[in-house]
Amino acid sequence: MSPSASVPSPQAAPGIALAPGGTIGILGGGQLGRMIAVAAARLGLHVHVYCPDPASPAFEVSASRTVAAYEDEAALAAFAGAVDVVTYEFENVPERTAAVLAGLVPVRPGPRSLAICQDRLAEKTFLSELGIPVAAFKAVDNAADLEAAAREIGLPAVLKTRRLGYDGKGQTIIREGFDAEEAFAVIGRAPAILEAFVPFALECSIVLARGLDGAVETFDVAENRHEHHILKRTRVPAAIAPETEMAARALGAKVAHALDHVGTLAVELFLVRDADGERLVANEIAPRVHNSGHWTQDAATVCQFEQHVRAVAGWPLGRPRLIAPVEMENLIGDDVDRWRDILAEPGARLHLYGKAEARPGRKMGHVNRPLPR
Amino acid sequence: MSPSASVPSPQAAPGIALAPGGTIGILGGGQLGRMIAVAAARLGLHVHVYCPDPASPAFEVSASRTVAAYEDEAALAAFAGAVDVVTYEFENVPERTAAVLAGLVPVRPGPRSLAICQDRLAEKTFLSELGIPVAAFKAVDNAADLEAAAREIGLPAVLKTRRLGYDGKGQTIIREGFDAEEAFAVIGRAPAILEAFVPFALECSIVLARGLDGAVETFDVAENRHEHHILKRTRVPAAIAPETEMAARALGAKVAHALDHVGTLAVELFLVRDADGERLVANEIAPRVHNSGHWTQDAATVCQFEQHVRAVAGWPLGRPRLIAPVEMENLIGDDVDRWRDILAEPGARLHLYGKAEARPGRKMGHVNRPLPR
Repeated sequence: MSPSASVPSPQAAPGIALAPGGTIGILGGGQLGRMIAVAAARLGLHVHVYCPDPASPAFEVSASRTVAAYEDEAALAAFAGAVDVVTYEFENVPERTAAVLAGLVPVRPGPRSLAICQDRLAEKTFLSELGIPVAAFKAVDNAADLEAAAREIGLPAVLKTRRLGYDGKGQTIIREGFDAEEAFAVIGRAPAILEAFVPFALECSIVLARGLDGAVETFDVAENRHEHHILKRTRVPAAIAPETEMAARALGAKVAHALDHVGTLAVELFLVRDADGERLVANEIAPRVHNSGHWTQDAATVCQFEQHVRAVAGWPLGRPRLIAPVEMENLIGDDVDRWRDILAEPGARLHLYGKAEARPGRKMGHVNRPLPR
Repeated sequence: MSPSASVPSPQAAPGIALAPGGTIGILGGGQLGRMIAVAAARLGLHVHVYCPDPASPAFEVSASRTVAAYEDEAALAAFAGAVDVVTYEFENVPERTAAVLAGLVPVRPGPRSLAICQDRLAEKTFLSELGIPVAAFKAVDNAADLEAAAREIGLPAVLKTRRLGYDGKGQTIIREGFDAEEAFAVIGRAPAILEAFVPFALECSIVLARGLDGAVETFDVAENRHEHHILKRTRVPAAIAPETEMAARALGAKVAHALDHVGTLAVELFLVRDADGERLVANEIAPRVHNSGHWTQDAATVCQFEQHVRAVAGWPLGRPRLIAPVEMENLIGDDVDRWRDILAEPGARLHLYGKAEARPGRKMGHVNRPLPR
């Protein structure tokens, strides 16, 4: 039995549950929204996707569509009136957007998940206060702060904007002899934090879901390789000790409970190996389905998208089990040109997002491949 | 290695292949069209569903929709102009509809699959001529024919309309002391065939796909239980001898090649056990994805819907392998009210079709469950 199975939380939120035929609204029309939409449809739910971009991949598989700005309050009100619950595929939902919707319809995950995860300073503070190890960090609001923080934390370190960073955007490495004004300019002179560099042995993540009743179900820990700051490969099982696997699951559950999270959630982790053995350092929280959970579509008994839908609908979570060792490869930019070769590989499962243009760095699809045991 | 892997056929048809971003048109908006649409979207294809019923389940997950009669030739022409290839979820596509479309765009599977499978007399004749055992049969166009056929074939026997029967509709059992006029009236006085009753030990089916290049990939044989003439459960592996499994795969491939079929196809089979052992008797061919292949969604390395899409798109087929023993249960009528209990079953995978009304006999969804090995 998994250490994480069905741990009820004291602060489980009450709330409505949907029935099949109910409508789930999704903010955001990218590939994550698209895969949530497919999972919802498979469970007999209607899907209504809201996204400003008319060419959004999720529109292709959704019953209803709203093309409007996230600031369009009339459109938000109409959307709220057309759905039974709202969820989102990205954590950078504007605060006002979330508030307008939450006044009209349940929004899951709730406001705490958004507030904490939108701001790296709030996130690191939250994790620290939970007793979860994080890299040493310090708020940086100007060049002088940066110089002081660098002295305190030591170098190399990473300067990151507090808000709106992803896939390595909005961050820069600070090394000995750095120019504080220049470094602060690189990240757009936005409120930031400086984080100590973590000398990790490998990167991993724990993906889990928490239900409306507070039950948590974790997936197996995923081992992640990034290239150019973008996730390139995920392997499961991760090459970590069994106790580390258990610790990661417990850490994820703790985070989810403390956020009163409803839905799928991922915590990105660094694994550090030293004379004392292995230990985990939390990097960041994604309060949503996560790229490092895409392997679950083909190698787990229930996938992260279905778990998210179950949670958001107020339904019981599935019990995820690894079916067989797996590697997920992201198809980034013109990687997608290999689609025909991938189709011909025995056992490979291809997922394409239906994006028209394969720009460099753009996530075009992914492939799940069985690994030898 | 499977006996059926990649058998190229001499009469492989040439034809265009799609690229990701291409558009697949689907005639018919029921649950089969819906599941084909989801598989196509997952592979980066656009989907355009054509169906007269505006409440069609497949519309919920399709990028483009045409609501029009199958006889509306202007709508058909517009549909053909908007897609790269047309496929269908049901074999009773009107001949004229198929002909109009085929004049404008590739239709896969092709005309031979439709012509043979729409007519039970043509189908049984075709199977016989291929050397595949079928029940003794005789054409019946009136009550006098029925009396003569009954004398020749023996009773009990089954009287079936040649066209448009499914799920037990358009058929009646003929027993000793029958009234020929009355029996003929029961099936609507339509052109019919009388078939000998087959004393089967069990019912099974072989589901396979044939590519545009003539390659065939078969799934494991499925064992089927019907209730009230509707499929209720499918189990894989079937409780049959290994030689029978191989014979079924070879039989399916022979049928697919002889039809020059492109796409997924199922042959429903009776297994007869007597002093000589096991033998197969073919019952009917479905030139499409089939209810007895729904288990492949959760227990095979590639599912029947993806195989159909790959074939129709002119792409290489996947190599299906059984992941673990499985049972599929159809949720018929108010069976669907058990959805919440099913969600709570460890390992059960629920699929709902999004139909509003659970009428008796209506297929509302299905569930795939792991079986002990």
